[in-house]
Amino acid sequence: MICEKIKLWEDNEHGFLETYIPKNSEEITTDKKRPTVIICPGGAFLATTDREAEPVAMRFVAQGYNAIVLRYNTYFGKKVTDRKNPPKGNDKSAYPQPLFDIAKAMLIIRENAENWLVDNDKLVLCGFSAGGNVVANMGVHWHDELLKEKFNVDSEMFKPNAIILGYALTDHMAMKKGVSANNEGAKKFAELANKAAFGKEYPSEEELMEASPVNYVTEKVPPTFIWHTGDDAAVYVANSLGFASTLSKHKVPYELHIFETGVHGLSLCDETTAANENHINPGCKQWFDLAVNWLRKHDVKL
Amino acid sequence: MICEKIKLWEDNEHGFLETYIPKNSEEITTDKKRPTVIICPGGAFLATTDREAEPVAMRFVAQGYNAIVLRYNTYFGKKVTDRKNPPKGNDKSAYPQPLFDIAKAMLIIRENAENWLVDNDKLVLCGFSAGGNVVANMGVHWHDELLKEKFNVDSEMFKPNAIILGYALTDHMAMKKGVSANNEGAKKFAELANKAAFGKEYPSEEELMEASPVNYVTEKVPPTFIWHTGDDAAVYVANSLGFASTLSKHKVPYELHIFETGVHGLSLCDETTAANENHINPGCKQWFDLAVNWLRKHDVKL
Repeated sequence: MICEKIKLWEDNEHGFLETYIPKNSEEITTDKKRPTVIICPGGAFLATTDREAEPVAMRFVAQGYNAIVLRYNTYFGKKVTDRKNPPKGNDKSAYPQPLFDIAKAMLIIRENAENWLVDNDKLVLCGFSAGGNVVANMGVHWHDELLKEKFNVDSEMFKPNAIILGYALTDHMAMKKGVSANNEGAKKFAELANKAAFGKEYPSEEELMEASPVNYVTEKVPPTFIWHTGDDAAVYVANSLGFASTLSKHKVPYELHIFETGVHGLSLCDETTAANENHINPGCKQWFDLAVNWLRKHDVKL
Repeated sequence: MICEKIKLWEDNEHGFLETYIPKNSEEITTDKKRPTVIICPGGAFLATTDREAEPVAMRFVAQGYNAIVLRYNTYFGKKVTDRKNPPKGNDKSAYPQPLFDIAKAMLIIRENAENWLVDNDKLVLCGFSAGGNVVANMGVHWHDELLKEKFNVDSEMFKPNAIILGYALTDHMAMKKGVSANNEGAKKFAELANKAAFGKEYPSEEELMEASPVNYVTEKVPPTFIWHTGDDAAVYVANSLGFASTLSKHKVPYELHIFETGVHGLSLCDETTAANENHINPGCKQWFDLAVNWLRKHDVKL
């Protein structure tokens, strides 16, 4: 297993990859290329949570995938344990930096394709919550001039073959509408999350729209697997319903699973990722097998 | 993930461990101890095959286990690709060296319990084919004076909490009966395998019996999960039927699954471990989930 930490940028300590690449064994299938998944954990752009990182990678590796966790630029980098003395914020966490991070991750993976046995036609992006925003943005923007100019390479280099969105934030406007003006705690959190995602506490509607992938869906979006819980109180199910609806209009192949109940941030829904009992949810746990079977249908498999 | 290669013995290059220990994350369940599985790949005591190593470890890690592959002493160490010019044989591959290797592995794991978050009451041994012989021998001999004297520690240190046997060689006599005197190829292979397992081409019946765990079953054997295919042409199903029968007599809790058909060496029965099409067997693939559910029943779980 190749377990490495790889920096995305020379001048930035925040963005990096964690690789989980199985051994190339001549006893199994020598040099056989593998599907590769880039996993973007959530964390409200304040951090990338471990709960949606290594354990998810392990689940994919067990199914024959290369897995790579993308620690995109976030405001604090790690979960803040001492809330009274938070570390200095990272001024590079705001949109579109995370989009540049995932684009750079794809280039690094393609550069290492031979050594890591990457099948360049089987690249999956899998994101949760805020990480789902990063993934969905890549799904809608991979062919944009923005990325082509930034990196000076062919757009095809950024094309994902499938994307997986777990309780993903795809519509900042839907989020804004949900924050009650009467809830001080929620307002404070929204301000901090906005500082992280936009570099300011009060982004304009234009800025909110710009960072919302739901507004950029075209027929070029790759096949998309979406799951959410109906009563998610942090990232509202309206995000996934709206995104699926837009995919449907543009005839993008997609699969949508709304499980009736479950808290936000379920990750794998079992003991391997649970921080508390609410994170154990046998009803929602099926999402992973559903997703892998769906990937197989799209030939994104070993 | 702690991925390390650890030598078992100072004076022996052949025996070593490969560790797959998930990260201790304060975001999931800080310092929570995990069940740990030691995986012994098969290979007729000539080598330990990759096909029953890392991919099997990944499957367990994905379920929340620590996984450790034991490369016990074998005759060639690695699969011999140039059969005309095989490497020099390892004179330490013969019984009881592999038993000492697995005993040493258990001590190393207990020594590292704190750092690796090992739950010392949830140690599982999982062996395939010849590796199943090593595991089954540990299952029957863990309380023996032989090990206690060799290592000068309490027998409890060697006690597994459960064992898993995949098409395991548990009865050398049953194997001997199966080799047809008219098949020159099979005879030659049996001689080489005997050289590896016993240090001689023609071990005595007494020596064959001594290395056969089926002859040492007592009520002290830990709960045992066994699977095999009915038409295994390399390690005959008589091994598993006989072993289960003896466990039954001694009232050892066990579970037995004989799948109707399947070649020898199926490992995970799918693309992740297949070296050829015969190794893809959806019918037998259930063994892994059956085994994990059975471990849960015995509380050997996260």
